[in-house]
Formats: sequence, C-alpha cells, structure tokens
Amino acid sequence: MRYMGRMSARLAVVSFLALAPAIAMAQYLASWNDGTAKKSIVDFVTAVTTEGGPDYVAPADRIATFDNDGTLWSEQPMYVQLAFALDRVKAMAPQHPEWTNTEPFKSVLAGDLKGVAASGEKGVVEILGATHAGMTSEEFAKIVSGWIATAKHPATGKLYTQMVYQPMLELLDYLRANDFKVYIVSGGGIEFMRPWTASVYGIPPENVVGSSVKTKYELDNGNPVIVRLPAIDFIDDKEGKPLGINSHIGKRPIAAFGNSDGDFQMLQWTTAGEGRRFGLIVHHDDAKREVAYDRNSQVGMLDRGLDEGPKFGWTIVSMKSDWKQIFPE
Amino acid sequence: MRYMGRMSARLAVVSFLALAPAIAMAQYLASWNDGTAKKSIVDFVTAVTTEGGPDYVAPADRIATFDNDGTLWSEQPMYVQLAFALDRVKAMAPQHPEWTNTEPFKSVLAGDLKGVAASGEKGVVEILGATHAGMTSEEFAKIVSGWIATAKHPATGKLYTQMVYQPMLELLDYLRANDFKVYIVSGGGIEFMRPWTASVYGIPPENVVGSSVKTKYELDNGNPVIVRLPAIDFIDDKEGKPLGINSHIGKRPIAAFGNSDGDFQMLQWTTAGEGRRFGLIVHHDDAKREVAYDRNSQVGMLDRGLDEGPKFGWTIVSMKSDWKQIFPE
Repeated sequence: MRYMGRMSARLAVVSFLALAPAIAMAQYLASWNDGTAKKSIVDFVTAVTTEGGPDYVAPADRIATFDNDGTLWSEQPMYVQLAFALDRVKAMAPQHPEWTNTEPFKSVLAGDLKGVAASGEKGVVEILGATHAGMTSEEFAKIVSGWIATAKHPATGKLYTQMVYQPMLELLDYLRANDFKVYIVSGGGIEFMRPWTASVYGIPPENVVGSSVKTKYELDNGNPVIVRLPAIDFIDDKEGKPLGINSHIGKRPIAAFGNSDGDFQMLQWTTAGEGRRFGLIVHHDDAKREVAYDRNSQVGMLDRGLDEGPKFGWTIVSMKSDWKQIFPE
Repeated sequence: MRYMGRMSARLAVVSFLALAPAIAMAQYLASWNDGTAKKSIVDFVTAVTTEGGPDYVAPADRIATFDNDGTLWSEQPMYVQLAFALDRVKAMAPQHPEWTNTEPFKSVLAGDLKGVAASGEKGVVEILGATHAGMTSEEFAKIVSGWIATAKHPATGKLYTQMVYQPMLELLDYLRANDFKVYIVSGGGIEFMRPWTASVYGIPPENVVGSSVKTKYELDNGNPVIVRLPAIDFIDDKEGKPLGINSHIGKRPIAAFGNSDGDFQMLQWTTAGEGRRFGLIVHHDDAKREVAYDRNSQVGMLDRGLDEGPKFGWTIVSMKSDWKQIFPE
C-alpha cells in the first residue's frame, strides 16, 4: 500500500509536469484573443524552449528586446518624454524670466505646440538641453520619478504608467516565465526610463537601452557625481537599435517587438540571425479603444514595416482584433 | 513515531539552514589566507545579505564591478589585448607587404617593442585600426576566440585564460552565491572580452563593460551586419569607468574591485554611495609567484590608490600574504 501510494504521488507529479506548458499558456496571455498572432508567439516560445527539439535555445541566449513608445505604452498624442520636457519648461519658467520672450520656450509656455514645432530641430535641442541636462544623473532620476508619479495623459486623465498595454505586460511575463531575458530598446532617453521600468514592467535599469546624452564624472565638494551634459551621445533609433543592442547586450536577440519603422532595423537584425527567430509589430488599428495610426502618423509612423514585415515572417498584431483588452483595468 | 520522525526531519532542515552561511564561507574563498583582507570581504557580504540588519541590500541592488587586467587576470609583461594586436599584425602581414617598410608595423614585425613604443599614440591607433576594425562584430568575435584558444603567455607558456587569479575566481563565485550581480568594467575592449568571459569567469557578455570603437549597421548583400570602424567610441578607464557603469548598469555598485589607478574613480564612485560599500585593490607585491609592481609600472600603475585607498576604507590585498595560490592548478 505505501509503495503504491508513493507511485501514485510520483505519477501525479509527472502528470503535472507534462501538463505544465498548457497550464502556463492558459495562465499567461489572457488578454490575447486566440488567432494567428497569439499562436505565432506560443509556437515560437514552445519551439525554442523544447529541449532536444531542432529549435532549442539555451536560456542564456533567450534574449528578447522590446521597443517602449507605442509597443509597451501609449505614444499618442505625443511621446511621453516630450510631455515631460514641456512640463519641465513650465516648472522651470519662474527661474527663467527670459523664456517668456525666447523661442521655443515662449511657445511652450503659451501652450502653442505648432509654435514649438516651428522651432524645428534647433528648438527641440534647446528644450532638451534646458530640461534634460545640467543636473546629475541622480537628480534627473528624482525629477523623472516625481513627474511620472503624478503626470496624467491629456486624453484619458490616467497616469502615463497606466497607459501601458495589458497584453504586452502578459507577454513580458510569459517570456520571463520561459527563462527569457527581457530588455527595453527604445528611442526614448535611457535615464528617462530607468527610474520606473522596474515597477511598471518588471524590467530593471540594467536591462534598459535607450538614447543618451554625454555625461561627465566630477567631484562636487569632494562628492563624486555624474553630470548630464547638453549634448546627444547616442540615438537609439532605427540603425541605432542594433548598435545599442550590440553595445549593451553583446548578443543578437532571438525575438524583437516593436510598432514603428523606428524598430525596423532591430527586427531585421534579430530575425536575420541563424536558427528560429521571432519579430512582432504592434499595429495601432483600434480607433475606438486607443488611436488608429500608421503610414501617415508623425509619431510612431509604420509604413515600411507593414509592407516588408510579412515578407520577413514578422507577426503583425492587430490591436483591434488580437487584443481583448488594451489597458490594465 | 511518524510525527516525531517528521519533527526530526524538520529540525534537521532548520539546523542546516542556520549552518548554511558558515558552510558557504568554508566552501568559497579557499585560496584566501585568513586575515584582514578575507575578513573584510566576508564581513561586508554578511552585512549586506543579513535580512533585517542595518546594512541589508536587496539582491537586485547587489551590484559588484571588477576590473579585468591585473585584477582578474595577468597584465604583465603587457596587456593581453596588446599581445593580441601584435599577433594580428604578424598574421595579417602577408596581405600587407607595405608594412615591412612602414612604422609602426615594421617594428611590430621585427619584434622591436621599443620601436613600437616610439611610434607613440599615433602608432597605437594605427595598430588598433588595422587589427580591431574593418570587420563585423561577429567576425571579430571569431578572430578573438580563435586567438585566445591557443595564444600563450610569453613568460609562463600557459594559455592567457589560465593566467587568471584563483582567489578572484573564488570571490566571483562567493558573491554570486550571495545573489550579487557581477560585472566586468575594464579599460580593455568590450568586444575583445565578451567572446571568452562566460567560459573563463562565468560572466556573460551582457555583464561586460569596456572600451569600444564606433560601429555601423549596414546591409552586406542584404544581410545585416554591424561593422567595427577605426575610431574610438568610448574609453572605459579612470573617469570613464563610473560613466560606463552608469550607461550599462544604471545603478551604482555596492562593491568594486581593481588593481590600478585606472580603477580609482570606479572605487571612489562605488564607495561614496549611501549605505555599506566595499572597495578592494589587488596589490601586485609577489615577485616570486607573479610580478611585483605598483608606483613605477607603465602597465597597471598603482600609486594614488595605495596612498588614498586606506583613507577611503578600501581593502588592499597583498597577493604575497593574502593569497595561498595565485593561478589555478
């Protein structure tokens, strides 16, 4: 009897392990409708995690990279980091009386976005220089943390950190549960993202790759600090994404996720590698639950990816039909 | 009886857990002599891993950074990467007949290191440009892997990967066993180290920070490649080390390990942080078992660190008296 009891227990364990993948699948991706997009994700993950299978990839090489703006959180009506910069100009204005007469600051303070846009690249660089440089990295992190804790999306009134895509949060969890290392590779500022990506996405600072300004190490009354300088060091967009990945990770991802043509080269680089690879583009086609935009959008333009993605075997996700839910409840 | 049996088993487990730290300590750091250096390491690790203690640090923030040359492996009589560059010049010479008449290549091919040195920084840049650029990152990784698998140290005849310090390997293991994330932060080339650090130190590519050349993403007959360009992008030495850490890790380490004044700012940055911190300098004072050098050495000069390190509370390790063994057997 005791022997049989042990055998039963062992059989139960074996049965449970055999069922585990199915259980895991039901547990994750709950906001994804059944369809080709979800199936392509599950098929890929199953293939690269099946030991002894032809597509098996060791956990150490299960690198997945995600764009942020428009892929993990909302980028409409403007990049969140731009909203941050404009808010910072307003917050800093009392210390800069000259801004009331100087572009692009005058337009920012007047809420005139067309005027800001008219100042062109020079204006953007001036706004970034004024709001993103001249402080230490630690001071900047505190400023970002304070802002992101309270700033609201202009259309929904929600915190920006609530404007994240529930199906993508589930996808991050699903990949991590399958021993993937998940990275953000974004055109956004690396030090703008790092203060909050751990709490919002479960992605720690060391797994965040982004654009950066030049920095300087110096002593401030004997206290070492890293100062942010008003000069671009690296732009992590388009061709920059594979280079940022190469610099920070040193491995080619086996899966990459984006939503705009700024992610094209990241997906190209990822899926051109040997062995089984995966590329996915989130297509913003849901005007009712979010915003519908692609080929003609100034923010997050998706044109080439729609045309060429399918040829490369990339999965195009329709937010409208593939996602049960857009934002967390 | 059955109940008591279970209780005993439970007591055994509890006793084992209570003993675990002591067991862990005996298991690791076997090549370290008992003394203030070893004690300072164990005291620090115990303090930051004791839950509820005043110095407790959550695993996510247990970041430890290690210099490579002279800290994890030998840097005498010349940096290993320089030996690699000189060997590459010799290997590439048949395709460059003009080198027999052109400095600094002429001196390299003649084995005239003084002549190479006489060519100054310009010469070094030319050698690096010829040997470290003009190929893809993947091609460079293959070249490095092939070289490191066979190249021998001129004095000992051992593979360079055998010229690593056994006590430091044990220290890496000890920290990882205590849930530290261990990084290399070296003045050496990031893509020179990444091909072999996982097998030699157990440190994966994404945990390696180093100097880099500029790179370019391009299509080679439709195949995307990352090409190494003959231009320095970042020098991860001195003030560069805190900046490299900030860029790649985005957190200030709580422990840093070096051996030369090139590591001074990394240790300064690390130990100036709030809470319990740890800095350690390996002092090469063992002429018998390795090489004795410090203040007057051209490679791995240690001067300021010897004077100021103790004031900052950094541990100075005497290779002669603190290490039972230098290299693995």
